[in-house]
Amino acid sequence: MYIVGISIYVKEEFREAFIKETLENAKNTRQEPLNLRFDVLQSRDDPNKFFLYEVYKNESGMAAHKETAHYKKWRENVAPMMAKPREGIKYTNLFPETEEAFEAK
Amino acid sequence: MYIVGISIYVKEEFREAFIKETLENAKNTRQEPLNLRFDVLQSRDDPNKFFLYEVYKNESGMAAHKETAHYKKWRENVAPMMAKPREGIKYTNLFPETEEAFEAK
Repeated sequence: MYIVGISIYVKEEFREAFIKETLENAKNTRQEPLNLRFDVLQSRDDPNKFFLYEVYKNESGMAAHKETAHYKKWRENVAPMMAKPREGIKYTNLFPETEEAFEAK
Repeated sequence: MYIVGISIYVKEEFREAFIKETLENAKNTRQEPLNLRFDVLQSRDDPNKFFLYEVYKNESGMAAHKETAHYKKWRENVAPMMAKPREGIKYTNLFPETEEAFEAK
């Protein structure tokens, strides 16, 4: 699996707009053939802090995602909402091991 | 859902021992009735960096996990392996919404 975890801090005045844009992007991404999950999380201690947990079948899936219209729209629309640059970290899975275990039903 | 994301940096000489301890903890945690997933990830850019993605049905599930023998054993055994204190962030889910979507099959 090719997994990306993205930490995002938004300016408070853009919080709800960020959520709207990100939910739309997440739902569209789940329609991509190589995407397995796209969890949108909000910190319980700081409502302006978010975490995106994106799982693709392979690196090509991540690359294909970045070429989609919904990703490009999201990236452009949320750019001015960031309180600081977002941080993405790429991972591989040690556990679990199957695509089925990662796929959001 | 009650979700915890934990970033961990280990000393290189303990990397394999950390993986062994953590996989054992993950597999045991998946047997807990309130746990939905426990993903063990390794950074693609730094093999000494790990991320644990733990999802429980609710806060009680997270609390129950911390009382288990396997968690206490893991915590004790990996403590000397850390290159710096581990950082855990608690989240709630905005998307997806169902337990089924989070449960690792």
